[in-house]
Amino acid sequence: MNAPDTIDDEATDKKRPHIIDGIGNLAGDGTRNCLTGMRPSGRLHLWHYKWALENWLKLQELPNIRNNFLIADYQVLGDHLGETERLRESVIDMVIDWMAIGLDPEKSNFIVQSYVPEFAELFNFLTMFAPYSVATNNPTLKDEMKKIELRDEWANASISLGFVNYPVSQVADIMLLRGEIVPVGEDQIPHIELARKIIKRVNTMYGTDFPLPRALISETPRLVGTDGNDKMSKSLGNTIYLTATLKEIKTQVNKMYTDPGKTNVEAKGNIEKHVAFQYLDIFYGNREHLAELKARYIAGGPGSVGDGEIKGLLVKVLEELIAPIRERREYFVQRPELVAEAIESGSKRAREEGQRILRELKGAMGLLDYGR
Amino acid sequence: MNAPDTIDDEATDKKRPHIIDGIGNLAGDGTRNCLTGMRPSGRLHLWHYKWALENWLKLQELPNIRNNFLIADYQVLGDHLGETERLRESVIDMVIDWMAIGLDPEKSNFIVQSYVPEFAELFNFLTMFAPYSVATNNPTLKDEMKKIELRDEWANASISLGFVNYPVSQVADIMLLRGEIVPVGEDQIPHIELARKIIKRVNTMYGTDFPLPRALISETPRLVGTDGNDKMSKSLGNTIYLTATLKEIKTQVNKMYTDPGKTNVEAKGNIEKHVAFQYLDIFYGNREHLAELKARYIAGGPGSVGDGEIKGLLVKVLEELIAPIRERREYFVQRPELVAEAIESGSKRAREEGQRILRELKGAMGLLDYGR
Repeated sequence: MNAPDTIDDEATDKKRPHIIDGIGNLAGDGTRNCLTGMRPSGRLHLWHYKWALENWLKLQELPNIRNNFLIADYQVLGDHLGETERLRESVIDMVIDWMAIGLDPEKSNFIVQSYVPEFAELFNFLTMFAPYSVATNNPTLKDEMKKIELRDEWANASISLGFVNYPVSQVADIMLLRGEIVPVGEDQIPHIELARKIIKRVNTMYGTDFPLPRALISETPRLVGTDGNDKMSKSLGNTIYLTATLKEIKTQVNKMYTDPGKTNVEAKGNIEKHVAFQYLDIFYGNREHLAELKARYIAGGPGSVGDGEIKGLLVKVLEELIAPIRERREYFVQRPELVAEAIESGSKRAREEGQRILRELKGAMGLLDYGR
Repeated sequence: MNAPDTIDDEATDKKRPHIIDGIGNLAGDGTRNCLTGMRPSGRLHLWHYKWALENWLKLQELPNIRNNFLIADYQVLGDHLGETERLRESVIDMVIDWMAIGLDPEKSNFIVQSYVPEFAELFNFLTMFAPYSVATNNPTLKDEMKKIELRDEWANASISLGFVNYPVSQVADIMLLRGEIVPVGEDQIPHIELARKIIKRVNTMYGTDFPLPRALISETPRLVGTDGNDKMSKSLGNTIYLTATLKEIKTQVNKMYTDPGKTNVEAKGNIEKHVAFQYLDIFYGNREHLAELKARYIAGGPGSVGDGEIKGLLVKVLEELIAPIRERREYFVQRPELVAEAIESGSKRAREEGQRILRELKGAMGLLDYGR
């Protein structure tokens, strides 16, 4: 049967039926597969939490959603070939962080891309269904092309065929798990559109009914680095890790830009570029108190608050978020076998589902059991 | 250990160390893997026999060569997607012909590409090692690009990503079976060069020692169609199948162009474009008798021979070649399970070898057993 496009259709954009706006609109009438993932980039920080993990935790609690969290190690090879020494550590660090924040391998599949050869097999099929121009018209590729020196085609820096194939490879990731819901950012909607086109083509040509995925768009707050830089990144040193110590949290919070015009507690303040307030906006649950603090900060005078108090509050808020994660992390660091088991069992389930999909596809294409 | 490039080095071209000139130069000091194959194109004809199968039979008798004969069904998908109805029949017809001419699944591996998912998995890895430009600089692709209308990128006729990936996919076919010897035509030497470059890159980056393949070039006679057309093809109706009946052989031989100037047996003859003589050149073992016939045909006079006699001889020669094939074919047509078993057991062996190769590669890249 065809997967009905019935998830809260009132809530989906009629002009963009492949988009679901927000997790709140996921209440549906049947169990659905959700696929999302990350490149194994080592320890995670607050941006990962706000941009993705917090939503994953919500997804995990929905009874009708089967969650698949992909550890996209192949993707690292596409542009960091020859630098795989740190990959093992990065995979483990990332998965420990997942488990430390509460993602549960008993409830969700943790899947290592390279543990599931079925991804590659399906990808290989899908390359036949994807026009070549899909690769060459890929805007990301075009951007990279401009950046990268192509004079020596065999140089390590040149673009690999794997890099060009990657959008189609992602389609295979989705289709292999019968992914119906794919949490992505707005900028990744074209990937979902590509997936729908390719899977539709398979269905049309061979009479199959593999589900067409829909993008789940969740509002994600803009989280700047602790130095106010738009990008939060390890290399800029402006991140707060999910595993930061209290001391590290304090160091990062102290670095935060406030209002240089607020020379003393009673001076009037400006919160426009105030990084500590921006963080409180995102992480502090007591909205009323926050509004009051802002008003007092801006107004100045005897009832005002100073940056010290604001930063102190932020440290407290972040420590409250991070301390239990840090603690659970320590637990898993001591028990690496739990991490190994989590990714092995999730990947095994993915292989089983993948083999079913491939058998269905090959059967429809007539590629099974020649002469039998 | 590195595969030593020691096969009869005297006989290989010093300027092209990756080329072996002729099967006669294969006597070597160890067992070597040979990989060759065909697209499943249905019943085979004399051109296939002369261009490839006769050499395969010789390879099969060499004690130090482990032969792998690939049934390249993926390749059909690359440019005939949506036309797989006849694929099953084509695979079986082709394999029956292989067995009918004497290829023996007990001595050689018959491998169906789509039965061995490890090909796809290795291919996926190799796309990371292959520069994108390798695809775009592929001359075959460039030719096809000119031919094919790309206005509608999702039209069936447009070039698929799979088509563009194919050269690298072929490298995976070779590497997965540790192929050291690859019988190819001169025009395919660039594929072998590509394979060597990619495999060398893997070896250099990750300290592996996967063997570099060498092209085995064998002299193949030029065999025109029975109508004298350069190309022998099913669609032109100018072929003689390896399974032709005596009547079909006669029909095709009778169509052959001779010398219109030889209006009677005693007229002088010209053998320059004489198709029947061209066939005798290739298929008639008695060279002395053939030389004598040619001389008499040309000279004319009372001792001359006419086209009837020449064609009669050719029919006899071809029937001698084809009759036993036809007979053995009938045997296998009655026993399709033997064909199915042949391709299943050969493919199984390929999977086992492939899994070893992949484990070795992934181990070298650090992609195994994260956290263990």
